[in-house]
Amino acid sequence: MEKHAAKAASMAGGEDEEERELSIRGLAAYQPYDGILALKMALAEFMRQIMQESVSFDPSQMVITSGATPAMEILSFCLADPGNAFLVPSPYYPGWDRDIKWRTGIELIPVPCRSTDNFNISITALEIAYNQAKKRGIKVRGVLISNPNNPTGSFVPKQTLHDLLEFAAEKNIHLISDEVFAGSTYGSGKFVSVAEVVDDLEDFDKGRVHIIYGLSKDLSLAGFRVGVIYSYNESIVTAAAKIARFSSVSTPTQRLLVAMLSDQKFIADYLKINRERLRKMYNLFVSALNKVGIECFKSSGGFYCWADMSKFIRSYSEKGERKLWDRLLEEAKVNVTPGSSCHCIEPGWFRCCFTTLSEHDIPVILERLRRVTDSHKS
Amino acid sequence: MEKHAAKAASMAGGEDEEERELSIRGLAAYQPYDGILALKMALAEFMRQIMQESVSFDPSQMVITSGATPAMEILSFCLADPGNAFLVPSPYYPGWDRDIKWRTGIELIPVPCRSTDNFNISITALEIAYNQAKKRGIKVRGVLISNPNNPTGSFVPKQTLHDLLEFAAEKNIHLISDEVFAGSTYGSGKFVSVAEVVDDLEDFDKGRVHIIYGLSKDLSLAGFRVGVIYSYNESIVTAAAKIARFSSVSTPTQRLLVAMLSDQKFIADYLKINRERLRKMYNLFVSALNKVGIECFKSSGGFYCWADMSKFIRSYSEKGERKLWDRLLEEAKVNVTPGSSCHCIEPGWFRCCFTTLSEHDIPVILERLRRVTDSHKS
Repeated sequence: MEKHAAKAASMAGGEDEEERELSIRGLAAYQPYDGILALKMALAEFMRQIMQESVSFDPSQMVITSGATPAMEILSFCLADPGNAFLVPSPYYPGWDRDIKWRTGIELIPVPCRSTDNFNISITALEIAYNQAKKRGIKVRGVLISNPNNPTGSFVPKQTLHDLLEFAAEKNIHLISDEVFAGSTYGSGKFVSVAEVVDDLEDFDKGRVHIIYGLSKDLSLAGFRVGVIYSYNESIVTAAAKIARFSSVSTPTQRLLVAMLSDQKFIADYLKINRERLRKMYNLFVSALNKVGIECFKSSGGFYCWADMSKFIRSYSEKGERKLWDRLLEEAKVNVTPGSSCHCIEPGWFRCCFTTLSEHDIPVILERLRRVTDSHKS
Repeated sequence: MEKHAAKAASMAGGEDEEERELSIRGLAAYQPYDGILALKMALAEFMRQIMQESVSFDPSQMVITSGATPAMEILSFCLADPGNAFLVPSPYYPGWDRDIKWRTGIELIPVPCRSTDNFNISITALEIAYNQAKKRGIKVRGVLISNPNNPTGSFVPKQTLHDLLEFAAEKNIHLISDEVFAGSTYGSGKFVSVAEVVDDLEDFDKGRVHIIYGLSKDLSLAGFRVGVIYSYNESIVTAAAKIARFSSVSTPTQRLLVAMLSDQKFIADYLKINRERLRKMYNLFVSALNKVGIECFKSSGGFYCWADMSKFIRSYSEKGERKLWDRLLEEAKVNVTPGSSCHCIEPGWFRCCFTTLSEHDIPVILERLRRVTDSHKS
């Protein structure tokens, strides 16, 4: 019947799933809510470039949404019911508490990583958290990580990705990897996407692996609102594509991006220059912080320094951290993210974004930070 | 503290709420998720034109989303909890069962209107449905209407809007009016927005009134994905603006629309020609249906004819209607929406979209419909 329906004179109104030619009608009329095929193809190629061609992506496993934020919400909605939970190694991106929990009713269970472990993910800690949740009657549906990590800026080691996949398989749960900073790398190590690890595995149920991506970070196009759900699970792709009707990207923007992303030379140059600039600003910024006695975690990707200011807090507690944050804001006029917002259990860590600054801002920042760090000495 | 924070060197990363100048940075960087002020102003003016300048709209009461579909979902999410319900005079737009219910867990309770009443909304029927829901322990949070009505194409009379507002006030519930076809009118009567009625009332709590609008219908820009929540309730506007982060319109598209909508002459010409074309196609289409013995409800706006094909169904039941729908699709190759999908309780009504057709399609449609209508005679 569907075949007939396709040929039938359409008086049911509304949508037409097939892609139209590039014309005003191709821009103005309804298009597939989950993104036009041309953009999926361009994004698959872009993601391949981002991952330094170590892995390829299949456009048919992709759902495009108006930003990585709704991509994460829609994927979460598809994977879990209200009251279910994801285990999230912490410190983690503070926006998740809002993006995932607000409407879906899903819980996030922070699983603390420690500075003594270089904030590496501990499978043992995940195991404990999983069992504790089970005891409390909470169904854990997955593990959620960011890689490169936000806020620490570290890459998740390949072995850890293997271990996480094994853990997910053992518990029969999902693994969600948020890789929005995959192309914003500046460290010496190599970033490894979970896609690369999954491709290496045999006899592994890939259907439990999902990647979140977007253009706000790596292509600096936050205003374009383009996010991607990339899933190895056909049912999830189908469901997410349906829900994408609540979060579509306008067709003119999609067409514009197809043109931009198809310019291979521009993209290659952009990524190269972007990485160089990130590296330069990161080094400048860390040196500046060092000058006032602030040590930073060694980051490899992303827009943030993960700075240890614990020696400047007066009581070693979340309250002490908040007080220092207040002083940084009120006295130094410097706005950073306190680690407690990222569910870091060790007080005194702060996430500092260095990509909104230019070289000329560094002396200003230094002078401002000294208002707080110097007063501490006295 | 917020004042200081605004002046603070921003190293917290992410967003900047203030609008930037028109530059690549003004397009590429984060903008307010609920739409840039320039577009809100342009849309407020456009809506005023659409409503034939009988009412004005305040940009600060507006939240822009990526289509009217998410506008409806977000507004519903803000007004009701899972398990709560809206009363919906039926027949109603079949998409609501999907757009509103899928993720929010809100129930829609159809409140049947009858052909003998010209499908007018009956406050008595609403009263009965409200009390029945109450008895079943279901909390009714609002009444949801479309005006111009989808599928019947009728305007909700001004007096009915008054009665609905009175009903909402009496029950202390909300009134949501979906007015996406407000500018697509072709009938002789005058369309009256609930905004106009609300403005007339004194001592009325406007905070219970909300309008859904969008550019997919009146400006034929479905591919641009632009919807509007217009609410007289400050808390709802604030909440919806926060949730708009899951459904933002890309900034290049917003800027393009600001330019388009600011061209007053183009818009005035467009609306005039669009109405003329709608009227012409409506008349042609209805005449064609009449020729094969199908009578239509007298529509005044929207893209649909509401056609009475009850005399062609063999058993006067939903099953009979579905059988006719099958034959229309399989034998006549004509795709229409059965009334039962719109929760119409009288079998044999069909919603037929005439705006996807051109004049030259009319003879084809006629010939195809005859395959079904003629066979019925024999």
